[in-house]
Amino acid sequence: MADSISMKNGKIVPDIVVSRLPLYLRSLARLQEEGKEVTSSQELATRLGFSSAQIRKDLSHFGEFGKQGTGYNIAFLREQLKAILNLDIEWQVALVGVGDLGHALAHYGRFSQKGFRITALFDNDPAKIGMEINGVVVQSHDEMVESIKKAGIRIAILAVPVKVAQETADKLVKAGVRAILNYAPITLSVPPEVKVQNIDPIAHLQKMTYYCQR
Amino acid sequence: MADSISMKNGKIVPDIVVSRLPLYLRSLARLQEEGKEVTSSQELATRLGFSSAQIRKDLSHFGEFGKQGTGYNIAFLREQLKAILNLDIEWQVALVGVGDLGHALAHYGRFSQKGFRITALFDNDPAKIGMEINGVVVQSHDEMVESIKKAGIRIAILAVPVKVAQETADKLVKAGVRAILNYAPITLSVPPEVKVQNIDPIAHLQKMTYYCQR
Repeated sequence: MADSISMKNGKIVPDIVVSRLPLYLRSLARLQEEGKEVTSSQELATRLGFSSAQIRKDLSHFGEFGKQGTGYNIAFLREQLKAILNLDIEWQVALVGVGDLGHALAHYGRFSQKGFRITALFDNDPAKIGMEINGVVVQSHDEMVESIKKAGIRIAILAVPVKVAQETADKLVKAGVRAILNYAPITLSVPPEVKVQNIDPIAHLQKMTYYCQR
Repeated sequence: MADSISMKNGKIVPDIVVSRLPLYLRSLARLQEEGKEVTSSQELATRLGFSSAQIRKDLSHFGEFGKQGTGYNIAFLREQLKAILNLDIEWQVALVGVGDLGHALAHYGRFSQKGFRITALFDNDPAKIGMEINGVVVQSHDEMVESIKKAGIRIAILAVPVKVAQETADKLVKAGVRAILNYAPITLSVPPEVKVQNIDPIAHLQKMTYYCQR
């Protein structure tokens, strides 16, 4: 959906490489939890189902992280990848739509564990406006643009019904949001400087049924 | 994560092409809802952010669906894509893990609207076993293999904590499941005949922060 290649700091890294960095990070965190201190592209490859050559090539876009024969220091590589992905700071996140899904997302502890703090909630249902979830008060859509601008929030999670998804995305963009995690089953139209990632469980299931025997 | 190319009925279609078919289907459904009867690769391209050449090439893997100059009959193309993706039948789905996320998924109406009926629920929490959600009784993990085998269920949604995700996936595979929609933030190890699609909102957010200014 996104451009396959994007430039950042004059450096061109294929989008697909950037997509894999969070998976490396996830594996490194697991390895560290298991008490390991050093790993290899081969070990990461086995865990992730990629080839070790691909892992080495992906990482080579960003620098030299390991030594031939001694592998990678897990803590160091983890810190480096976090810095590359701008994860050494905490991000404020706005969550729009506090229905069943939005509610579950508001309570999903992994967001704050991983440095994404949901600091603003929005919904258009009068019954929900004013409600407090995890210490954050639900505001109306009318307050969205000003409130997000004021707080300087750049990341939003969109969990609204399809029919209001595009107009809500337009407001988010107007408010300065530059990254949207979109749960509405629709392809959003946004300016090129805004990144969108889509989560649609139906599309994932439909892809797999292609391979399923009836 | 999955193989980039898979064979089905002796036909080789790149995995990435299969991934896009559900998005075409989603757009066609929207167009039909808007009262349209005919569309073009150009119109689909604009809506999806792909090139029209790519859409024509993707579809050409499966046959001739449109006529030069007259475009695609939406209803016909939709039916064809549904048949290609095995969506002209209803699929039974097992949902494992009825925590906050699993609960929201069990109530997500779009699954059954799109032909994925959640007919089995599993959890290991004694407080949840025996509970009824949307007419389906939550069973224990101990009953999983036999119950799924007996019902002939081939698709499962995995919404359990990381620490039990792999062992649960092993049980699902043993029970005959061939497609797993995995919400646990871990790369599952499964035999080649089993497809896995991963949904990890953190990985999606982390990919976007790469492009975000601090």
